[in-house]
Amino acid sequence: MEYFSEEASAQVVNTRIGDGTDVRFRTIMTSLVEHLHAFIKEVEITDAEWGEAIDFLTRTGQMCSEHRQEFILLSDTLGVSMLVDAINHRRPSGATENTVLGPFHVCDAPIRRMGETITLEGKGESCLFQGRVVDLHGNPIAQATIDVWSDNPEGFYDVQQPDLQPRWNNRGRFITGDDGRYCFIGIKPVSYPIPDDGPVGQMLARLGRHPWRPAHMHFLVTAPGLRRIVTHTFVANDPYLESDTVFGVKNTLVQHFRRCAEANTEWQAEFDFVMVPEEILS
Amino acid sequence: MEYFSEEASAQVVNTRIGDGTDVRFRTIMTSLVEHLHAFIKEVEITDAEWGEAIDFLTRTGQMCSEHRQEFILLSDTLGVSMLVDAINHRRPSGATENTVLGPFHVCDAPIRRMGETITLEGKGESCLFQGRVVDLHGNPIAQATIDVWSDNPEGFYDVQQPDLQPRWNNRGRFITGDDGRYCFIGIKPVSYPIPDDGPVGQMLARLGRHPWRPAHMHFLVTAPGLRRIVTHTFVANDPYLESDTVFGVKNTLVQHFRRCAEANTEWQAEFDFVMVPEEILS
Repeated sequence: MEYFSEEASAQVVNTRIGDGTDVRFRTIMTSLVEHLHAFIKEVEITDAEWGEAIDFLTRTGQMCSEHRQEFILLSDTLGVSMLVDAINHRRPSGATENTVLGPFHVCDAPIRRMGETITLEGKGESCLFQGRVVDLHGNPIAQATIDVWSDNPEGFYDVQQPDLQPRWNNRGRFITGDDGRYCFIGIKPVSYPIPDDGPVGQMLARLGRHPWRPAHMHFLVTAPGLRRIVTHTFVANDPYLESDTVFGVKNTLVQHFRRCAEANTEWQAEFDFVMVPEEILS
Repeated sequence: MEYFSEEASAQVVNTRIGDGTDVRFRTIMTSLVEHLHAFIKEVEITDAEWGEAIDFLTRTGQMCSEHRQEFILLSDTLGVSMLVDAINHRRPSGATENTVLGPFHVCDAPIRRMGETITLEGKGESCLFQGRVVDLHGNPIAQATIDVWSDNPEGFYDVQQPDLQPRWNNRGRFITGDDGRYCFIGIKPVSYPIPDDGPVGQMLARLGRHPWRPAHMHFLVTAPGLRRIVTHTFVANDPYLESDTVFGVKNTLVQHFRRCAEANTEWQAEFDFVMVPEEILS
């Protein structure tokens, strides 16, 4: 065994890993230690800076509660959540792209009939969302579940305001028929800031970054034998499209919302979801 | 501005940093994001693994309290604390080397007279610690303060057992005279495990690593105009010397403890501290 040295620091640490260690865990920890040591050497972190980092991580952990996950916000704002998603959900060209799930999804939203509204408080600019769920060849997919959720016109999800919004406001699930079509009425989403009253908000401020996300509708699309799609559609021309604080925007997800002249809603937005089989290799 | 892509992920994140951002903070965060993204790409972290990492960091933060700093334990056991120390305290050959401060130092320990004991509970194998504080040319340094602390024979520091050990047990400060000499009576230290009932202990177990530190006496040596020394002396032949769980051991700090035939103590250990001026460049 070798004592610690600045030169061989990561190697000395990694040599200690026991022979019986799970191969995958060894691979992850070895790479983590190498990159962590390389970072510290590259910028020559001072004692005081490392003390600040320890304090930041501690405060981030202590900000977490049943209703707040500050480490996920940190992962989101450093682009790590999008990177992990990109690595794990590579798809063939033409398939709908993923983006981050976000912290506001709730399982088991009410299943509604096609055409129904998900907006229960009567606020906001109404919008008809419609389109098809299809495969790579354009064939309709029946029995697909489209789970949707958005913020309200003040920029808050129902779970953030349990005393102010009806339960399941701006949420619902819709199941396609043989034509693969979906349609429902919601509101045109609005942009909003992520919670920025904690350590992550302080980090963003120090980096000269804002905490805003561009307006978007969340979709989680599942169907038997097909890969699930976790994505948003973004409102074109939103001022935060190019500076989404969690880096969630992709070109193919930006959607043109059109004014409705004849329909019962003020806006309409069309988007088709293109699903791929589970067994397609990434 | 560019939307997120797997290929350019770190660049996209770093391009967002504001123009007015402190230059040093920009340097640190840019390097951090590059290395963090490189790590995730290298091992292709899965969604489930990233979820586990978020959970680990959260639990580590929530384990921290007034009496426990789990993120420092994490930094110590990944060799990061030693690396930060090495980068910040490079010294010319011949000067005494640093090692980690550890979490058990307490400021303002009682100042004792040379030759006095620091052991207040009468347990353990007594040991005479002695030597000189000198400069690189061997000249004695007067008015140097030697702050010492060690565990008791059961492997606990006084602050870990406020109800079982007298306050300031195995702690004291000694100030050198014109000859630069110091001597005091303590106990021959014993090896002990770091607190391993939290997330860091679980990580060590999963890596097939033990939580033990080899027996050592802590020293913090200060003198006007000279760089402070934060170090330990380690008991030669300790079974954990080559596997110190915080990587604190250096060759020059391993000390031979000798049996005393004639003195009032069972053991004696000699060590000279070699200090360098504040202004020597690292």
